[in-house]
Amino acid sequence: MRVFIAGIDGYLGWPLAVYLRARGHEVAGADLLLRREWVAEVGGISALPIGGREERTRAVNEAAGAELDFRVGDLTDFAFVKGLFQEFRPEAVVHLGQMPSAPYSMIDQAHCVWTQRNNVSNNLNLLWAIKEVVPEAHLIKLGTMGEYGTPAVDIPEGFFEVEFRGRKDYLPFPRQAGSWYHQSKVHDSHNTRFATEIWGTRATDIMQGVVFGTGIAEMGDDPRLRTRLDFDQCFGTAINRFCCQAIIGHPLTLFGIGKQRRGFLPLADAMQCLGLALENPPAAGEYRVFNQFENAYSIAELAYLVKDIAGDIGLPVDIKRYDNPRTEMEDHYYNPDRQHLLDLGYQPTRDIRSVIKAMLLDLLDNKERIAAHADVLIPDIRWDGDRRRSEVIG
Amino acid sequence: MRVFIAGIDGYLGWPLAVYLRARGHEVAGADLLLRREWVAEVGGISALPIGGREERTRAVNEAAGAELDFRVGDLTDFAFVKGLFQEFRPEAVVHLGQMPSAPYSMIDQAHCVWTQRNNVSNNLNLLWAIKEVVPEAHLIKLGTMGEYGTPAVDIPEGFFEVEFRGRKDYLPFPRQAGSWYHQSKVHDSHNTRFATEIWGTRATDIMQGVVFGTGIAEMGDDPRLRTRLDFDQCFGTAINRFCCQAIIGHPLTLFGIGKQRRGFLPLADAMQCLGLALENPPAAGEYRVFNQFENAYSIAELAYLVKDIAGDIGLPVDIKRYDNPRTEMEDHYYNPDRQHLLDLGYQPTRDIRSVIKAMLLDLLDNKERIAAHADVLIPDIRWDGDRRRSEVIG
Repeated sequence: MRVFIAGIDGYLGWPLAVYLRARGHEVAGADLLLRREWVAEVGGISALPIGGREERTRAVNEAAGAELDFRVGDLTDFAFVKGLFQEFRPEAVVHLGQMPSAPYSMIDQAHCVWTQRNNVSNNLNLLWAIKEVVPEAHLIKLGTMGEYGTPAVDIPEGFFEVEFRGRKDYLPFPRQAGSWYHQSKVHDSHNTRFATEIWGTRATDIMQGVVFGTGIAEMGDDPRLRTRLDFDQCFGTAINRFCCQAIIGHPLTLFGIGKQRRGFLPLADAMQCLGLALENPPAAGEYRVFNQFENAYSIAELAYLVKDIAGDIGLPVDIKRYDNPRTEMEDHYYNPDRQHLLDLGYQPTRDIRSVIKAMLLDLLDNKERIAAHADVLIPDIRWDGDRRRSEVIG
Repeated sequence: MRVFIAGIDGYLGWPLAVYLRARGHEVAGADLLLRREWVAEVGGISALPIGGREERTRAVNEAAGAELDFRVGDLTDFAFVKGLFQEFRPEAVVHLGQMPSAPYSMIDQAHCVWTQRNNVSNNLNLLWAIKEVVPEAHLIKLGTMGEYGTPAVDIPEGFFEVEFRGRKDYLPFPRQAGSWYHQSKVHDSHNTRFATEIWGTRATDIMQGVVFGTGIAEMGDDPRLRTRLDFDQCFGTAINRFCCQAIIGHPLTLFGIGKQRRGFLPLADAMQCLGLALENPPAAGEYRVFNQFENAYSIAELAYLVKDIAGDIGLPVDIKRYDNPRTEMEDHYYNPDRQHLLDLGYQPTRDIRSVIKAMLLDLLDNKERIAAHADVLIPDIRWDGDRRRSEVIG
């Protein structure tokens, strides 16, 4: 299958290119390489050293047959997107090409507005390019479980049966996102569904949990095939950050009481799920929503798990609570569905202990790199608009 | 009260300035005057001749005491918005400064993306300027009843009690908007609510029906105080377009079977409601939603009403059905609430016959103007992306 990956240089985009090439798909992608700039802007660095575009492309071409087509360009430029689609004629488009950080979007007015303009515009451009060039193509748009927020009822996959004042309808499940970034993904979900309705195009909207992991089997031992792994307050997500903290003996940073529950999944599971979505496209005009995560965990539960596994390999770890920079519920009901991917054959990694252990071992070699940037581990971007480093509260 | 009107040059923004000045409020506003360009772009013209910025400002200053502060500038430029707020320090901000046409947003990729970028960016800028400069100020953000779409259940005001799998929550009512423009308003609603949650600012989100009418009492007989009235396929809304058609003997254009039901309200009611919202601000941190319309009518019902009233004043009128350029349900359940404004004292105009009769009489003087632009009365912008003039189907 010809698959176009928007955001091919990112934490998920790059492994997806490697994964799909290993499975014999033809892959093209585009990226403006902004993730590298954003991480530098907030003082971070990838814990795992990664290659540049040319080195990556060379490595993937050595590992598999046909050329990987990796373009540098801006997805908010419609002429660029349309031209690429006319050339490559994708059968599927995976949209990972966005600014993906909640805290980064919360820095100030400029970061908020830039995030929403960028994300909304480039998602619209992909929708329009599909319509105008390859109307049969399947869009897999990455959303996030964060679009739903934390309602007091179960979270279905996109839609639910509603009874209201004695009448019934099947309606989109309400979205209550918790950052300007997450709001941008809600906007994209609304736009994506609308496109399928008016044009009869097809889309899978993936509400993905928080991904963790340092690699996938398809990367083998080639360091040039590795993906990035961030640990700063903006681009480092919970388990990835905890592992980096464990490596350098920094206390694991729980925000607030730590009972926030979220869906999580290993990088390999994310690849497996995206592969299943690609290989089982929706019908023309169909808009379907998949909740994509291995399981739901509380942040504290994960911190204790990392502490425990780190202890097994001789890394003593402390856990500390910090005042929460975010506006969010810290103790709440959370019960999302994830049946659609199971129905397609998704085999969740049941053993996240092994995944976390492998991460710690991968990261050990890069202890100096992480230690040299340890000041990015404590957040100072606050949801109330203030800029103040979180203090230890317990 | 010091009220800032974003979009002060528009169909609603200008009458609101006149209305609020007549009630003794201090008014400032900004507009980039784009509405005048958009209407020209699609071949339209205001059926009622209107003055330019300077003539309008002079007229309102003669009619009431203090100076009206009417700036020309771009609300997507944050420095401009913030500077204005620092100078004027509004106690309330009414946001009418957006691209408000569904068909215009559906023309092509460029119009779609421009609309969403413009609307989302300038709404975010107003939210940020309030937060940074006047955090106590009340934002009245104009949304549209179209954000809800046409669900098979009653439409509450923004939120509803949900029971799902035996658990309950009070959730945002799902939005199912029917154009790229309407989607942009959904995005704005999500962003506006989120701002109140994280910053404790206050907002009223008005889901407004379709407004009709040629003026309000506060304009008296001064033609310089008049507002615009569009009748083209993009900026002319149903009743306004029907009245212009009746004036020149053009058949009233029903799209499809004509049983589409929507909320409608006279211009005077819109002003009354916005005044009530302004005079009864929400608490700090409160986000409230008002459904704002006089009553729900089907399009066919309104066409027959206009035909009947036109007949009374000697204008023979035909009604014709055209193939529907939109993707929408043409016969559906529709039962929206509108209790919040009634609770604040809203007195709906019960007699829309009189309003329509007054409109027809106002428009009669401008028959030549309308007739000279009659080619904009038949739509050719289609929701499926095609560009083809609608044909008569019955």
